[in-house]
Amino acid sequence: MEKKKFLETESDIQTLMERLFPICRSITGNGVRETLRILQEYIPLVTHEVPTGTKAFDWTVPKEWNIRDAYLLDPQGKKVIDFKKSNLHVVNYSIPINTRLPLNKLQEKLHSLPELPDAIPYKTSYYNENWGFCLTDAERQELPDGEYEVVIDSTLADGSLTYGELYIPGMEKEEILLSCYICHPSMGNDNLTGMVLLSLLAQELLSQKEKSRYSYRFLFLPETIGPIVWLSQHHAEVSKIFYGLVATCVADSGPFTYKKSRRGNTVGDRAVEVALRDLQKEHSIIDFFPSGSDERQYCSPGLDLPVGSLMRTMYGKFKEYHTSADNLDFVSAKNIIDTAGVYRETLTILDKNATYMNQNPFCEPQLGKRGLYVSLGPAKNEETNETAMFWVLNYSDGKHSLLMISEMSGIAFRTIRHVADLLLAHSLLK
Amino acid sequence: MEKKKFLETESDIQTLMERLFPICRSITGNGVRETLRILQEYIPLVTHEVPTGTKAFDWTVPKEWNIRDAYLLDPQGKKVIDFKKSNLHVVNYSIPINTRLPLNKLQEKLHSLPELPDAIPYKTSYYNENWGFCLTDAERQELPDGEYEVVIDSTLADGSLTYGELYIPGMEKEEILLSCYICHPSMGNDNLTGMVLLSLLAQELLSQKEKSRYSYRFLFLPETIGPIVWLSQHHAEVSKIFYGLVATCVADSGPFTYKKSRRGNTVGDRAVEVALRDLQKEHSIIDFFPSGSDERQYCSPGLDLPVGSLMRTMYGKFKEYHTSADNLDFVSAKNIIDTAGVYRETLTILDKNATYMNQNPFCEPQLGKRGLYVSLGPAKNEETNETAMFWVLNYSDGKHSLLMISEMSGIAFRTIRHVADLLLAHSLLK
Amino acid sequence: MEKKKFLETESDIQTLMERLFPICRSITGNGVRETLRILQEYIPLVTHEVPTGTKAFDWTVPKEWNIRDAYLLDPQGKKVIDFKKSNLHVVNYSIPINTRLPLNKLQEKLHSLPELPDAIPYKTSYYNENWGFCLTDAERQELPDGEYEVVIDSTLADGSLTYGELYIPGMEKEEILLSCYICHPSMGNDNLTGMVLLSLLAQELLSQKEKSRYSYRFLFLPETIGPIVWLSQHHAEVSKIFYGLVATCVADSGPFTYKKSRRGNTVGDRAVEVALRDLQKEHSIIDFFPSGSDERQYCSPGLDLPVGSLMRTMYGKFKEYHTSADNLDFVSAKNIIDTAGVYRETLTILDKNATYMNQNPFCEPQLGKRGLYVSLGPAKNEETNETAMFWVLNYSDGKHSLLMISEMSGIAFRTIRHVADLLLAHSLLK
Repeated sequence: MEKKKFLETESDIQTLMERLFPICRSITGNGVRETLRILQEYIPLVTHEVPTGTKAFDWTVPKEWNIRDAYLLDPQGKKVIDFKKSNLHVVNYSIPINTRLPLNKLQEKLHSLPELPDAIPYKTSYYNENWGFCLTDAERQELPDGEYEVVIDSTLADGSLTYGELYIPGMEKEEILLSCYICHPSMGNDNLTGMVLLSLLAQELLSQKEKSRYSYRFLFLPETIGPIVWLSQHHAEVSKIFYGLVATCVADSGPFTYKKSRRGNTVGDRAVEVALRDLQKEHSIIDFFPSGSDERQYCSPGLDLPVGSLMRTMYGKFKEYHTSADNLDFVSAKNIIDTAGVYRETLTILDKNATYMNQNPFCEPQLGKRGLYVSLGPAKNEETNETAMFWVLNYSDGKHSLLMISEMSGIAFRTIRHVADLLLAHSLLK
Repeated sequence: MEKKKFLETESDIQTLMERLFPICRSITGNGVRETLRILQEYIPLVTHEVPTGTKAFDWTVPKEWNIRDAYLLDPQGKKVIDFKKSNLHVVNYSIPINTRLPLNKLQEKLHSLPELPDAIPYKTSYYNENWGFCLTDAERQELPDGEYEVVIDSTLADGSLTYGELYIPGMEKEEILLSCYICHPSMGNDNLTGMVLLSLLAQELLSQKEKSRYSYRFLFLPETIGPIVWLSQHHAEVSKIFYGLVATCVADSGPFTYKKSRRGNTVGDRAVEVALRDLQKEHSIIDFFPSGSDERQYCSPGLDLPVGSLMRTMYGKFKEYHTSADNLDFVSAKNIIDTAGVYRETLTILDKNATYMNQNPFCEPQLGKRGLYVSLGPAKNEETNETAMFWVLNYSDGKHSLLMISEMSGIAFRTIRHVADLLLAHSLLK
Repeated sequence: MEKKKFLETESDIQTLMERLFPICRSITGNGVRETLRILQEYIPLVTHEVPTGTKAFDWTVPKEWNIRDAYLLDPQGKKVIDFKKSNLHVVNYSIPINTRLPLNKLQEKLHSLPELPDAIPYKTSYYNENWGFCLTDAERQELPDGEYEVVIDSTLADGSLTYGELYIPGMEKEEILLSCYICHPSMGNDNLTGMVLLSLLAQELLSQKEKSRYSYRFLFLPETIGPIVWLSQHHAEVSKIFYGLVATCVADSGPFTYKKSRRGNTVGDRAVEVALRDLQKEHSIIDFFPSGSDERQYCSPGLDLPVGSLMRTMYGKFKEYHTSADNLDFVSAKNIIDTAGVYRETLTILDKNATYMNQNPFCEPQLGKRGLYVSLGPAKNEETNETAMFWVLNYSDGKHSLLMISEMSGIAFRTIRHVADLLLAHSLLK
């Protein structure tokens, strides 16, 4: 395997973001292939091509879309919309068109946002053959009357759907799923940075000297149809998914939002909460709801996988959402690193969680004779390792995991894990 | 059956209220019969006469009480209390009396409210033979010393207890019970308007072209002894009661109060909450407590029927309660219509509630190809039919009813029901 | 048995407090024996001596510690620390020492509290042989340089651990455990007053004419090692413990704090809450946590006994905690009596709690014909005995105890118990 590029510094991350940003991605086509190829310089993604027409539960893989150019010439021949300036200018999956239309007819095919007059909206028409242009409302107001030349040089033809996958085997077959979507064109928070975040986490896991406890599966898929295809082809294996996270909207400056899995109270859901608490991140926790991103598929009722979504500001809740204002200024490498810290802490908690049995369940064991108790007590300060040890000893009854003890006590999981290791070393736990 | 009078306009309702108001009702007697006879002009109530002495669980049907006149003449022969002016002037169920008493002796038999000096209190002495007069405290302070002539021209004799019943068969034998009490004399919120409200609802149900899902049973009974008699004679059948509501205090201008059934979380209890939410009515929900009105009997521990009470301001919580100030000015036809809207919505929710199975439980079905999805998405506005469809599809797993989905999602039950019908039409639900 | 001294007035209590205060207690030794001997003047405590070296679960009974004198002479021969003035001046369980040390060396053995410069801290070194002196920080700052004479005239030798026990048989073998610790030297809230409180309660129980329902066991033990020894020697019998309370910090002026048992929702835990509510005591309820006092041993995972702790201001939450400022001015006989009221109410609730079956479960029984209902109703005031009777009748379904009915209704347990007795007398309950 060739030498990889690393994502260690903010500058490394910024470089990758800037390379990925201009590419015109969609749910199929060369934009996705180019995106995955760049990511392969960083992590050993395996790419899959699923042919047009392939059945996937209730769905069918659509035709492949590719676009070379698109523009609008005004009556004076001035290029008033140019795909080369922003790929958001074209309704994603637009069929090819080459025609002349008067402005009043053309208006039906134009999309802008009066409430955000300087932003180009992001529009798609995946499963309904159509075409259109998006532009800022300011530009739209300036369009002169008359006949326009309309060109979209695209193709919609049999081809395939492309996705990337990376499986990192752990000591156990149970796996943790980390999923992001790769179909959105030039937008930062949704979801260029999701891809970067997962690449960063994958690199870290690959560079560990020892195998993780859980296996990890990273999926880089087009939204909706991607997980539907993957799940339909791996239906029997999903029971191995111990927990999963959908990475989207991970790089704005807002506080964290955790959208729980449909089951709502899985070990993974609780690990995220403890990670956010321990890292003292401002956050809100919201219940699952069946709109949103790919957790919709993972949490469909026939599957009901324990998959949540850890975000900064949630989709639809920031005004730049689904517009050209969700650009590289709206996100930052710093925020990706910050969000990665919470993902990492969550994975660590899951990796290190365990349930033990106190080997001296009748009254406390004498910590002092084992050197585990600071003598010349009693101390005034309650928040000591002794306190954590008392929690672990008292609740290690086979029913309470270390995660639960951390939740109950309010003591950081890492402290709980640390004292559990001390107690294990003294054969006080098993 | 003769042509019925209708309760469609505020004026229709006002007319009925004004006819019922002056009647001197009690738990037995001609006042109740006259009341039910008037209601029969509107709905085909069946009346039942249960003879004095009939046993009903721990109770016995009491003697029948009738009153023709009552008054108090002061030492100058002036009629200072006159039953003909307000039937509240006589303690309800007073035995006949014709005597002369000095004021100081008479005082023991007088009842007034110093804290509400212009209101006549409502007093009864049903199961303890006694007599008395009620008057405003202002009037009482003006009574001159001397000997008074005391006349109550009443009879307390074997007879019967009268109640009205209306059964409207539905497609199912399970029934919804709507119960009100008919024993209170000239008071508006407690409970003349309860009778009017249920008459209005009964008319609506009777005028439906199609049978309802549930059967409906309307009971117009004297409070306490009425439901005790009815329950004792229909003990075996109460298991058919799917849900019930006691209608009292339904026409003042206050916000709504829902007193839950003893079980507390039945489908009916939750339907009322959703109805209040969907109609955006200010309200409070309170737990069952075993004092109050006839829900006390329906929710006695041996029966524990799912019966709650949907009110405006609860009994005992408005200062006019159990006084002459609870008159036709304190209530309004408009408020009855408003309250009826919440009763109707509750009944609709129960009628239309169902639990389905998503026929495509693995990932989402493709709504677009069925014309169920607005193309050119993604839309910015989340509160669309699509959102409701995602909720219904995701939670139609055989465990979540439409009512539960409405509760979880915060989406109006009618919207949830509407999209469920769309999904059923496309065979996406079953 | 000799005539007992009584704890009836504040003055009686104050006298006992003043006798117990100066004694230098520790986890073993003559201070404990002297303390128990004084208490035996009030209650017939049985004392037990458990020899040094006796195994108790993971622990071993330590050597017995006794101390006669201790002091520090400054370079001028001035006695700057004198054990006779406060036994807190010596680190409890200090080994004997007789040496000379320069101030800089001596400093390592001195303990003071810069944040509380006029208080002597309380320090112990039970299971690690060591010695030291405690003094106010103000005194410490004044110590002149030079060589000090250091004398601790103590012995640490084989002997025994002493504890007191009082068992009061009730009608049932199930017992209520009341436990306090006797090892703390001259401090008032922690825990001289805990011993006084339990003595007062024991006297009351002993003076009752009739046997209590539950048996009572009072334990006066050194903290930690005491209950560990007792539990290890009565392991098979602990299943008889129906509920227990650890009495500590019972006499400051703060609001009440109830620390729940580990199980959290036992009858006893709930009885304390109702007692605090009924007596209208300002209080907070906190979940069990496995540091604190002897509830740590009673609630260890292998035992998990239903033992909580009812305090005023909790240990560690008042600034005088574990210092000489926790003296007889910080506590009062009045507060002990006040706290005893809540203990007593809790014990009464447990004693009087029961679950009945309504003998007329179908609708209400007719209270009026039994003289249980005030006629000339309806009353305006809801909080009558009638209301309490309705609660008891409605919820006496074999599933709800009187305590639960008191909790649900918000009606004082004593009222609930009173009406239950009325209803029992009329055979309405069984």
